[in-house]
Amino acid sequence: MDNFTFLSPTEFIFGKNTENDCGRYVKKYGGSKVLVHYGSGSAVRSGLIDKVKASLDKEGIGYVLLGGVQPNPKDTKVYEGIELCRKENVDFILSVGGGSVIDSSKAIALGVPYDGDFWDFYGTGKPVEKALPIGVILTIAAAGSEGSGASVITKEEGKLKRDCGSDLLRSRFSILDPALTETLPAYQTACGATDIMAHVFERYFTNTKEVEITDRLCEAVLLTMVKETPRVIADPHNYEARANIMWAGMVAHNDIVGVGRSQDWNSHNIEHELSGLYDVAHGAGLAVIMPSWMEFVCTHNVMRMAQMAVRVFGCEMDFEDPERTARQGIHCFRKFLASIGMPINLQQLGAKEEDIPLLVSKLGLNGGRTGGYVNLSEEDITQIYRIAAKAEI
Amino acid sequence: MDNFTFLSPTEFIFGKNTENDCGRYVKKYGGSKVLVHYGSGSAVRSGLIDKVKASLDKEGIGYVLLGGVQPNPKDTKVYEGIELCRKENVDFILSVGGGSVIDSSKAIALGVPYDGDFWDFYGTGKPVEKALPIGVILTIAAAGSEGSGASVITKEEGKLKRDCGSDLLRSRFSILDPALTETLPAYQTACGATDIMAHVFERYFTNTKEVEITDRLCEAVLLTMVKETPRVIADPHNYEARANIMWAGMVAHNDIVGVGRSQDWNSHNIEHELSGLYDVAHGAGLAVIMPSWMEFVCTHNVMRMAQMAVRVFGCEMDFEDPERTARQGIHCFRKFLASIGMPINLQQLGAKEEDIPLLVSKLGLNGGRTGGYVNLSEEDITQIYRIAAKAEI
Repeated sequence: MDNFTFLSPTEFIFGKNTENDCGRYVKKYGGSKVLVHYGSGSAVRSGLIDKVKASLDKEGIGYVLLGGVQPNPKDTKVYEGIELCRKENVDFILSVGGGSVIDSSKAIALGVPYDGDFWDFYGTGKPVEKALPIGVILTIAAAGSEGSGASVITKEEGKLKRDCGSDLLRSRFSILDPALTETLPAYQTACGATDIMAHVFERYFTNTKEVEITDRLCEAVLLTMVKETPRVIADPHNYEARANIMWAGMVAHNDIVGVGRSQDWNSHNIEHELSGLYDVAHGAGLAVIMPSWMEFVCTHNVMRMAQMAVRVFGCEMDFEDPERTARQGIHCFRKFLASIGMPINLQQLGAKEEDIPLLVSKLGLNGGRTGGYVNLSEEDITQIYRIAAKAEI
Repeated sequence: MDNFTFLSPTEFIFGKNTENDCGRYVKKYGGSKVLVHYGSGSAVRSGLIDKVKASLDKEGIGYVLLGGVQPNPKDTKVYEGIELCRKENVDFILSVGGGSVIDSSKAIALGVPYDGDFWDFYGTGKPVEKALPIGVILTIAAAGSEGSGASVITKEEGKLKRDCGSDLLRSRFSILDPALTETLPAYQTACGATDIMAHVFERYFTNTKEVEITDRLCEAVLLTMVKETPRVIADPHNYEARANIMWAGMVAHNDIVGVGRSQDWNSHNIEHELSGLYDVAHGAGLAVIMPSWMEFVCTHNVMRMAQMAVRVFGCEMDFEDPERTARQGIHCFRKFLASIGMPINLQQLGAKEEDIPLLVSKLGLNGGRTGGYVNLSEEDITQIYRIAAKAEI
């Protein structure tokens, strides 16, 4: 096991109607003037924003509203938020939404006290030194941003999708009410589930030996997703299944399943160019890329892929031909994704095979390679996209 | 899933030689005058206390030392610590040891700023309102106190073992270096492993339905312990196995595997009277009590016990007779405990069958019952002790 540090200081408040307590938690964590940041009109139409306002009013906490965050959140919205926070002397950001809204809130949080351009921190590894505190009311189980220190923003100019990570960006509190996710369309629910599984797989495929505890924790989340996702697709109002998925989404990404081991993240990197270029859902892009990546790297460590096949998808181990089991596991994963309504190839995603060279060049490797479970060249990534173009079940 | 809150704000620093950074972390979390609290002389003899002093000196942090904490830590040591802290104006407690030392540190931490007797908080549910910050350098994987808000202290007068819990008692940072555990005798290592498994089982046996995510996380820890413990017993210097167990011990008890569900804790309650009366190792007491409790409650929910048997111990499911599978799982658990050198009945533990009425009366139920997975009367607990008296493999 590699040396590591692990810090997940967020207070999680989980369950029915917990959103009505948001004012109390803002106060507990020192907020006196709040930016209520949200996405589409559904947070307003559902009455959620009214509940938030009522709870803040009850505690005598002032606030300003900023809605309109889009999926694959844009830098332009971040600039707007930073300006508003400065103008209104906001000292706390309450993020009401999914990963896009939370990631946008994190960008605003680090941008407000920073003299330069917030974009300086994205894709550069420049360390965050200060950020406004944020709180979260989660409305979709997917990105895990409610428990992570990560933020991903797309620069409109050039459609560059880049990330930033810091423990200072971890939410002070995150309110998770599974009932809020019951109105989500099946497609978005499935995209979220795919993202959750991908967060685990990015950590599962490691070159670090003998990390049984994190292997087993990864498998715990994956087994839960394999069981619960079809239940939610079949019945969107299954609260218990929604609850299991919502908590699994946090566990998948606060890094408790990833510490002490090398991780991969190339499927995420490769996918970011897809959703950056076509503005498709990140989860849908992952459904196309991740199994294709698995096919490409399968022989790097056949036994690890076979372990996944046996432990997660219940495949029978072929002791004479472990690679057959390994590939069967990948097939099961892709079949699972199709069964919950995900696209499994570029065409179903609405992406074009002829754009592959553009997608590869946008990764910015300039002839270099990108590290991870398998060190990938631009040629390797081209091949992964080609596998993704031809994928079938 | 039940509504819950979850807060685990401790920063974990895990791996080889991380103890040398303790001074830096004390400083980070605001300590300027430290009580270095430890147990037996082994922390001194091994050179660990010297490393701690050197690290504190390097940061220019003052300290006083207090050693001599015993297993099943006593109130008398707590009073000594409180007095010393007040006299020396200590503002941070650095706990160097296992559960006993950490629990003693937590009691001192809450006692120093409290006007009355620290014992007021034990076994009463009285809420902690203030406590000194503590940090931990862990030397045995067992109690999970490095990641929990719990503390268990024994009152010498009457040998009463009682607990107290509060998020304010959670360590600011915990340093976990698996190499520090390599010198532990096999018996203590096995006691620790048993305690870790018991922490999970207390959460695993629940009456809450459809909590797949926490079920699977529980099983992840248990599977890890079943694999790694025999490797450490066979080779005490197996760093990787030690590392897996050490992290599993934290995961087992910061409640990430227990949120959103009713829990049991009766095996711990019943065992506390055993180790309180005979001063035997808590883990050894649990090895005797927990499988006996499982036998007693088996028919309460046969399918849950069968799930444990199949998923944790790899038993074949008997679809015609699930109870046979369930009981086979309990047998596997007891066989596993014996294989790592644990006692499995009262006699092997050094306890006397004729003391059973005394043990039951010390629980203080006064003819009442104790809640949990199965609500137990004094007669039920007597039966569990009797099963424990006769247990064999």
